[in-house]
Amino acid sequence: MLGLTMKKGMGELALIERIRSGWAAGAGAAPSAGRGARNLMLGIGDDCAILRPPRGHEVLVTTDFTLEGRHFRRDWLPPESVGHRALARGLSDLAAMGARPLAAFLSLALPVEMLATAASRRWVERFFTGLIGLAKQFAVPLAGGDTCESPCGLVLADIVLVGSAPAGRALRRSGGRAGDALYVTGELGGAAAELAGMERRAAGSKSGLKSGPPRMPAPSQAAAHPQMFPQPRIAVGLELLRRRLATAAIDLSDGLSTDLAHLCRESSVGAEVSAGALPIHPLALHAALDRTLDLALHGGEDYELLFAAPATVRMPRSVAGVRITRIGSLVRGKTVSLVDSSGRRGPLKPGGWEHFSERH
Amino acid sequence: MLGLTMKKGMGELALIERIRSGWAAGAGAAPSAGRGARNLMLGIGDDCAILRPPRGHEVLVTTDFTLEGRHFRRDWLPPESVGHRALARGLSDLAAMGARPLAAFLSLALPVEMLATAASRRWVERFFTGLIGLAKQFAVPLAGGDTCESPCGLVLADIVLVGSAPAGRALRRSGGRAGDALYVTGELGGAAAELAGMERRAAGSKSGLKSGPPRMPAPSQAAAHPQMFPQPRIAVGLELLRRRLATAAIDLSDGLSTDLAHLCRESSVGAEVSAGALPIHPLALHAALDRTLDLALHGGEDYELLFAAPATVRMPRSVAGVRITRIGSLVRGKTVSLVDSSGRRGPLKPGGWEHFSERH
Repeated sequence: MLGLTMKKGMGELALIERIRSGWAAGAGAAPSAGRGARNLMLGIGDDCAILRPPRGHEVLVTTDFTLEGRHFRRDWLPPESVGHRALARGLSDLAAMGARPLAAFLSLALPVEMLATAASRRWVERFFTGLIGLAKQFAVPLAGGDTCESPCGLVLADIVLVGSAPAGRALRRSGGRAGDALYVTGELGGAAAELAGMERRAAGSKSGLKSGPPRMPAPSQAAAHPQMFPQPRIAVGLELLRRRLATAAIDLSDGLSTDLAHLCRESSVGAEVSAGALPIHPLALHAALDRTLDLALHGGEDYELLFAAPATVRMPRSVAGVRITRIGSLVRGKTVSLVDSSGRRGPLKPGGWEHFSERH
Repeated sequence: MLGLTMKKGMGELALIERIRSGWAAGAGAAPSAGRGARNLMLGIGDDCAILRPPRGHEVLVTTDFTLEGRHFRRDWLPPESVGHRALARGLSDLAAMGARPLAAFLSLALPVEMLATAASRRWVERFFTGLIGLAKQFAVPLAGGDTCESPCGLVLADIVLVGSAPAGRALRRSGGRAGDALYVTGELGGAAAELAGMERRAAGSKSGLKSGPPRMPAPSQAAAHPQMFPQPRIAVGLELLRRRLATAAIDLSDGLSTDLAHLCRESSVGAEVSAGALPIHPLALHAALDRTLDLALHGGEDYELLFAAPATVRMPRSVAGVRITRIGSLVRGKTVSLVDSSGRRGPLKPGGWEHFSERH
């Protein structure tokens, strides 16, 4: 909890101060507290933050927008989920490269009316509760950012994550080789299935009554809410790197079909995926059979890892407590195919989300 | 020039590809090409960028929003200026700490109609011309970012700059001591004076006719346009650090009175500024006398450096070709005062821009 008590018209400095102290308190209470903070020489309060990466490490940087009306709807997601997801997107990018997070930077533009009333301030407070909760889990300090009034009444956020990995060892998309086995962590299609459920409920309740932001599910229910509370696979990424288990990796943000295409393009290979091997999230199993496959292949936002490993590697059934499933292989050429349970093969085209374009 | 020829509905991947190749070409042609690129091990095209800072250096990170309707108006500024200013804000933060830029990250949300017609695509193209022009000047590679469709018809950008400085040597706001002399680079009030001119012209031309984005001034005229084309003082910052000339520094983004208050608070000192000593930009001299002082003290967006140095240091009259002017001293206590030419002293209160609050 941040204990935000913003006054109407409170200045940017005061807001920054609240965020700084709230996040610092949150991160400080983490079991592995200070892991990230140890490398943060100077945080909020100067022109730049100063980081000292561990000796012999390179620095990894990723940046992700979280824009209302584009990446989330305020009337569908509880504020805690919006905060959680904003940070999870960046953490998942670090996980995909086997990096350890060092610091986060949050640029946040808030509608002015959001600071005007106790109810609207509550949204900001709950946003930070979600964000800081996840930051605490990975001991990521908030090292800086920018705040201002939103020019259009929408919540606009951009999250930057900085991490580190031993020099030359980060898991790239480009390291895959024909013949490598292809794996995913966790289960697929859950995030898209949960989103579809929200959509159905929204369509069914057109009462026009504004009942405030959605309720936050009990924290123990996080696994049942892969859309609201995706779990970045930091620990898996670190293990894959440390034990040299992967040749290439990417996180599943846009959907398996799209992200596999990225990995194949960067590795100059094709792939063959076995439909029957895909680990399906329970939420996606409720759908009709062809819809289930669609959710798992194209759904996106699962934030699991997709990675390749030499076929000779004995892959454990779980890494860092997360289930690992072999779903296919990398092959020569450029073609990505899907093989169904009766052995029929068809092209697997990117069907995940791509901004600025129609869904295919 | 990027040579953007975006098709309506072209995908995010294609946009990213255009930006990558355009910026790479721009930065590669720089006289000091590769300075930044040498430290960039992996750029756009993976989950994260990978940077290898010079041995013995720390990593500096800063992030700045550039939101239409908040930080710029599309009808007042030429697109080249919007791109230039977006990058200049982050470079100036690095300059203030004496850091060398290593890489930039751009998160950019564009209104979908901006990609629909040749005229609207021209805006994006000109935005990148301005941004890449400045990136080229400092050999800063674009290492990543995010792109998506704007949820509200406004151009929304967030720029992240990563730089490096020798470990423990970055110029902080907190290093000032009572007795230090106080200096500024360049001239003050020019950016605010130019903005006031734009405001007057806009008020005077309410024809309602949309005549397209404003014209780009000739590049040789950049110095006469401190609002449109602020010059980040990277070379000055590097020299101040290298020659150990400064104890503390900050960049003048919010205005001298506000930024001096930040420096004083972080250094736990007060300050005394001599009104008569302030170096005034020619554009600000055109205003009435009290207005001139107001522009220089509170105007903001000059992106000059304010720094402190022990009184015993013989400060050169220029550093890296930029004029240096002594404007006062740091003093014990917390009070920041302004002394006029007849020796009268009054409190100097932060009067610069602070988001979420009224101007004081």
